[in-house]
Amino acid sequence: MTTLKDIGEFGFIKRFSENFKAPLPEGFEGIGDDCAVMPFNDREVMLITTDMLIEKQHFLPDKISPFELGYKSLAVNLSDIAAMGGYPVSAFLSIGIPPETTLEWLDDFFKGIKHLADNSKTLLLGGDTTKVNQSIAINIAVIGRCQKHLIKKRRGASAGDVIVVTGYLGDSGGALQALNQNLTVTDDIQNLIQHHHMPKPHLVEGKILSSYREVTSMLDVSDGIYSDIHHIMEQSGVGAKIFIDQIPVSSALQRTSVKHNWDIDEIALTGGEDYCLLATIKKQFLQKVKDVYENLLSRPLFEIGEITNTGQLELFKDDKRVTMTKTGFDHFRTDG
Amino acid sequence: MTTLKDIGEFGFIKRFSENFKAPLPEGFEGIGDDCAVMPFNDREVMLITTDMLIEKQHFLPDKISPFELGYKSLAVNLSDIAAMGGYPVSAFLSIGIPPETTLEWLDDFFKGIKHLADNSKTLLLGGDTTKVNQSIAINIAVIGRCQKHLIKKRRGASAGDVIVVTGYLGDSGGALQALNQNLTVTDDIQNLIQHHHMPKPHLVEGKILSSYREVTSMLDVSDGIYSDIHHIMEQSGVGAKIFIDQIPVSSALQRTSVKHNWDIDEIALTGGEDYCLLATIKKQFLQKVKDVYENLLSRPLFEIGEITNTGQLELFKDDKRVTMTKTGFDHFRTDG
Repeated sequence: MTTLKDIGEFGFIKRFSENFKAPLPEGFEGIGDDCAVMPFNDREVMLITTDMLIEKQHFLPDKISPFELGYKSLAVNLSDIAAMGGYPVSAFLSIGIPPETTLEWLDDFFKGIKHLADNSKTLLLGGDTTKVNQSIAINIAVIGRCQKHLIKKRRGASAGDVIVVTGYLGDSGGALQALNQNLTVTDDIQNLIQHHHMPKPHLVEGKILSSYREVTSMLDVSDGIYSDIHHIMEQSGVGAKIFIDQIPVSSALQRTSVKHNWDIDEIALTGGEDYCLLATIKKQFLQKVKDVYENLLSRPLFEIGEITNTGQLELFKDDKRVTMTKTGFDHFRTDG
Repeated sequence: MTTLKDIGEFGFIKRFSENFKAPLPEGFEGIGDDCAVMPFNDREVMLITTDMLIEKQHFLPDKISPFELGYKSLAVNLSDIAAMGGYPVSAFLSIGIPPETTLEWLDDFFKGIKHLADNSKTLLLGGDTTKVNQSIAINIAVIGRCQKHLIKKRRGASAGDVIVVTGYLGDSGGALQALNQNLTVTDDIQNLIQHHHMPKPHLVEGKILSSYREVTSMLDVSDGIYSDIHHIMEQSGVGAKIFIDQIPVSSALQRTSVKHNWDIDEIALTGGEDYCLLATIKKQFLQKVKDVYENLLSRPLFEIGEITNTGQLELFKDDKRVTMTKTGFDHFRTDG
């Protein structure tokens, strides 16, 4: 009998998607982008996203504080809203908790969610509570809205577009490596862990980029750009070049990578959980978008590559073509 | 240190709710009813509900087929939409599955969801997939809509209103008892199990009842009426009388209860998971509502009690006041 282990995580997602593919009424969009889309009114559409976090798969309670876990559970959903250029309206939390959980833990978890909800003007409207015997299970669903003609999807990129990202890559992956290797927590590693445990959803960045019709596609970096760029390639029917030297990495990650002899390129490309945005922009409008973005945020918008018509992902380093063997995390395969 | 075990499930829900209580903008309603409410347009509001089902807490995979489990996971959410008088629009499924799960199991699970989604015109728009080590975790969120002036809440009942239910009570509780006691599956027990595994959400019943302004409050029976009527009592600031002799029970449950010496009253009052609706209706309009309801559905609307101003729940049997010690399931307390 074939099991999930045999088809791997991406096979599972594919099967899940195929089961859920059906012709939809006008104005609805289902599986395949960062959020589902539903009609709202003449001016706006609704965005819906949902994420499940399971203890040991997505977090270790002895490594992340309950406040951080609450914060992060909401942040990963807000990142999906940001990726379409929307703003969040409301959130719904389901939580399964072992009976031995202390009230202190629970209250701190709620505080973490509320902290980010208040900061992002997200209303906590409801949810469900249940007992579990062992692993904590968290599900958050977020409803957002977006101007109809400004919504950004994974499709829309075309050859010649510039690929940009809104933040440093690899900090979260570096943190995971440091935690897994039980390294002494230096200031640099603390910095990486902060990004891993409390990723800032790039809502403002998403709003700015979505304001431009010349931004042709967008998504949030959740599995690492090496994996995530493929979504844009597949859905836009294009290829991509990424210039590894141009990938923005924090000085904390640089120093830690040198110290521990980590492959910083691999971490930056495949680390995952960065939760910044990756977008494509028509080349002749790049400067205009960059000027406004950088003026509003006082931070650079990083150019890391270019959309091509090859259908392939090509990586370049020091002007030479290089290849990668790793293809992002695959939670199901054991032979990964 | 105080843990969840010490405060019990209802204490947990209360703490959860208190953490999430905050002043909401006009048109929004959060925790406290079957669904949260968000503004939609001049004519309609949006309803949102979410339910988490955990293996061993809510179902046993060797007792329920994957098709039934898929069906039921969606049904319990649709029941919440029905309870407000609404209709479903879209559903979002998050599922955490152990790697050993067969594709056959998974496909049948999806088929169960799709079967009910198609029957109830609910669009499956998205979700999330993840690995778990042991217990299957399922979360479904459903978005529905409802005419603004017809929405039914738990508040609104007043003394003198008649209490009605839209279906037999106790079948699901009886099934659970039969499954827990490993009884031989007779036709009657099969019938009960059918209700337990594939509860029909009372969407049409909810729409009919919501059409009348004289239906003053409504909810779905998920924990058993003994527990659920307290939500209406608390939120409407009223008391209630329930006439146990008038509680509708199926002949399958009657025969099985006699055979196995079960306390049928207790099962009907506290069994839970019936997923029919409980509503209150202004006495002078009861006949009008019943006439239309029974004409449209060719089934009775059952009167089981009356709202009072005592603030208490009073149970009557053979015209005598009786008391109950059990107060519905409490998954967290060990001392019952």
